[in-house]
Amino acid sequence: MTQLSAAAREYSRAQGERFRQELHDFLRIPSVSTDPAHAADMERAAAWLVDQMRGLGLDKAQVMPTAGYPVAYGEWMGAGPDKPTVLVYGHYDVVPAEMADGWATPPFEPVEKDGKIYARGATDDKGQLFIHVKALESYLKTAGRAPVNVKFIIEGEEEVSSPNLVPFIKEHLDLLRADVCIISDTSMRTMDEPAILHSLRGMTYLEVTVQGPTDDLHSGLWGGAVHNPALALVEILGKLYNPDNTIAVPGFYDDVVPLTAEERAMIAKTDLSEAQYKQSTGVTAVWGDANYSIRERISARPTLDINGMWSGWTGPGPKTIVPAKAGAKLSSRLVGNQDPHKTFEQIKTYIESIAPPTVQVDVKLITTGKAALFSFDIPEMQAAARAYEQAWGATPVFTRGGGSIPVVAEIADMMDIPVVMMGYGLDDDGLHSPNERFSIEMFHRGVETAIVYLEELSQMER
Amino acid sequence: MTQLSAAAREYSRAQGERFRQELHDFLRIPSVSTDPAHAADMERAAAWLVDQMRGLGLDKAQVMPTAGYPVAYGEWMGAGPDKPTVLVYGHYDVVPAEMADGWATPPFEPVEKDGKIYARGATDDKGQLFIHVKALESYLKTAGRAPVNVKFIIEGEEEVSSPNLVPFIKEHLDLLRADVCIISDTSMRTMDEPAILHSLRGMTYLEVTVQGPTDDLHSGLWGGAVHNPALALVEILGKLYNPDNTIAVPGFYDDVVPLTAEERAMIAKTDLSEAQYKQSTGVTAVWGDANYSIRERISARPTLDINGMWSGWTGPGPKTIVPAKAGAKLSSRLVGNQDPHKTFEQIKTYIESIAPPTVQVDVKLITTGKAALFSFDIPEMQAAARAYEQAWGATPVFTRGGGSIPVVAEIADMMDIPVVMMGYGLDDDGLHSPNERFSIEMFHRGVETAIVYLEELSQMER
Repeated sequence: MTQLSAAAREYSRAQGERFRQELHDFLRIPSVSTDPAHAADMERAAAWLVDQMRGLGLDKAQVMPTAGYPVAYGEWMGAGPDKPTVLVYGHYDVVPAEMADGWATPPFEPVEKDGKIYARGATDDKGQLFIHVKALESYLKTAGRAPVNVKFIIEGEEEVSSPNLVPFIKEHLDLLRADVCIISDTSMRTMDEPAILHSLRGMTYLEVTVQGPTDDLHSGLWGGAVHNPALALVEILGKLYNPDNTIAVPGFYDDVVPLTAEERAMIAKTDLSEAQYKQSTGVTAVWGDANYSIRERISARPTLDINGMWSGWTGPGPKTIVPAKAGAKLSSRLVGNQDPHKTFEQIKTYIESIAPPTVQVDVKLITTGKAALFSFDIPEMQAAARAYEQAWGATPVFTRGGGSIPVVAEIADMMDIPVVMMGYGLDDDGLHSPNERFSIEMFHRGVETAIVYLEELSQMER
Repeated sequence: MTQLSAAAREYSRAQGERFRQELHDFLRIPSVSTDPAHAADMERAAAWLVDQMRGLGLDKAQVMPTAGYPVAYGEWMGAGPDKPTVLVYGHYDVVPAEMADGWATPPFEPVEKDGKIYARGATDDKGQLFIHVKALESYLKTAGRAPVNVKFIIEGEEEVSSPNLVPFIKEHLDLLRADVCIISDTSMRTMDEPAILHSLRGMTYLEVTVQGPTDDLHSGLWGGAVHNPALALVEILGKLYNPDNTIAVPGFYDDVVPLTAEERAMIAKTDLSEAQYKQSTGVTAVWGDANYSIRERISARPTLDINGMWSGWTGPGPKTIVPAKAGAKLSSRLVGNQDPHKTFEQIKTYIESIAPPTVQVDVKLITTGKAALFSFDIPEMQAAARAYEQAWGATPVFTRGGGSIPVVAEIADMMDIPVVMMGYGLDDDGLHSPNERFSIEMFHRGVETAIVYLEELSQMER
């Protein structure tokens, strides 16, 4: 550890309380990208980040337009051309949150309690991306310089699968050019088990709608002679799975690369016990494909989930109708060589093949994301491992992530650089759920680890 | 036809325009009984009816409390004890209606177009019950007397299965004592085919909820190892039916009285062609138990429909969760000797028997209603048939109704009187649907038929 990083780490500790107050300000902005009603909040969140970057004296700090919500960009290139350039990717958008979902405190009024910051976006991803802003600040406000060049690209559409980020990167390839991309948007099992992700699942998200009668019908006048579209949907969705909990869509598993014995042994190191699983989920019994361990099912195997479902009357009391429509949102997490568009076509073709003639069934693609897989013996990954050892105080494991960060595979492909996923969340932070939270201690350890990582990168063999 | 009824009919024609304007006022009150937000509107609707009855000089016209929404009551006993007393039952409450459901005009702002009155409640039941108020007015404002005694009992909880009407009737049996009950809350196939209903289906309405994880989970972090509660619900609901579209609940059909060849021949007279069926529903192909005709399926056979279904995210865009919960509202239309509570227990027991151990399933009774069946050769039914012949201009058929008016069986049992169901709606009036409507011509013919029916009842052999 050099004097440079030691001073930066000390600064980060001294300024920790202020860092968190600023994070609270960021978390107060309800930047929900899935709901057009929050469009103005999205602009506010991007502008807030640019203000932060300007405050550090970053160059080119600006809100950059896309066809959707803007990107917050800024760069510090003072380390010079001989030093590596790090591209920090993050996202300022969040998923919806309503008190009625079960929040103990308002989701956009951050509260610190029991060592956690409670707010929508606390861990996913505002709190985690902010770590890198504060790591750079800690260098610039002490030595006036950092050991490497740093660029920030913070987008606003990650939670809607980043539809405009690929065109944005293509358009600005020169501006964004870097040697490695860091993303902190993932999690570890416990504070003592830091994890570097080298793999993510991809995604195919789709919507199935079933139209029965033109309008809702009175169930007394027509019940018994009309194929209820909710029942038709149930019949279709009920055929998506086999009795052994494998997915029944023909060809679905064709492009899944089988796990080797070595990989399975590595994954087994971080497997969950049934007790840990129940503790984290609240579920009473484990479910899934019994040929795979829990950790394998949630990271190295593809899925097909119902994310939402609707039909007819869902308000209070009875309403005696045969609904006109029923629908469901479905998504598949993909691994290995599964192509999201091919998977969509397989699901669509299968659903159309089992759709009964008594209803009209429509299958529509909502969004896709590619799966990603990196080798973990490259210098950029090993530098990250050393940063954890020095600043976090524990040796990290390399793991596969079950989630999808759509842009990871795209960045790697388009920019031809590795993506290092250093996640500072905990598996049970409740992201996308009520009472999302982020450990205060992990936030501060994260800033110090990010500080050391920049230094380790500067010493890396190129 | 006597001078008395001739004058009343003439009056009803002369005052028809005003009758309809008054009906519009009634329809403007959004008396939605399923939604507590409309409690004040319910009180307004009951008071409005009592004002109407006071305007006719009825005795005891008053809003009478129940444990739920009140009853509007009024009586005219001027025909004396030698004449029959008719109890007119109707309901001032309506089911919910929102523009977003597909209404062309606001549901509580009545519009007359193409010979129809468009509004929620136009046919079910405000327009139909109002016919009897105006029939009585037509006698009282011409001769100053009617041929029989008339009592009105207009309740506000029919659409929530009349939970408080039975106690109300029990408490006020003396006040309500009558010789026959008339209800206009049903429909005919076309204007030229008036129908008198002698049978109605009963109902069991229930709700199934499935709890998976404690909170919504991130589908990337947990997908593949958690039994998605929406999928579990789908698997449960998918087992309610057999492949031949019969209901798979053990014992479900045990108490259904088989149709005789004679009954089937009578029902065949009003069967629907496949073209009529498609025209009315907008459905592309007929569905149901192929052992029965369309008319049998919708009137003389029991059903099990999904009235509503919900889980997870149903807003715009994707949300990648494993939902914590899923639920469905189910209802069964019952016939013959099926007991609603026994049917509920059968469904509950069956669902519990097929519920997987990976989720928690709850089955809750919402409401019940008994089925009703009357003989159609009694004098009260035959008098109704003569009224149609004279005032409507067509001979009615006696049919079975597929819907449920929960109180019909209760009134018959408690008061030991027949219930004559003279419905003035059309099968395709869209009740409980967007753009509910009521034929203006049928409203006026209805008033005249109701006028003649009171006269025919006065001449009935007792």
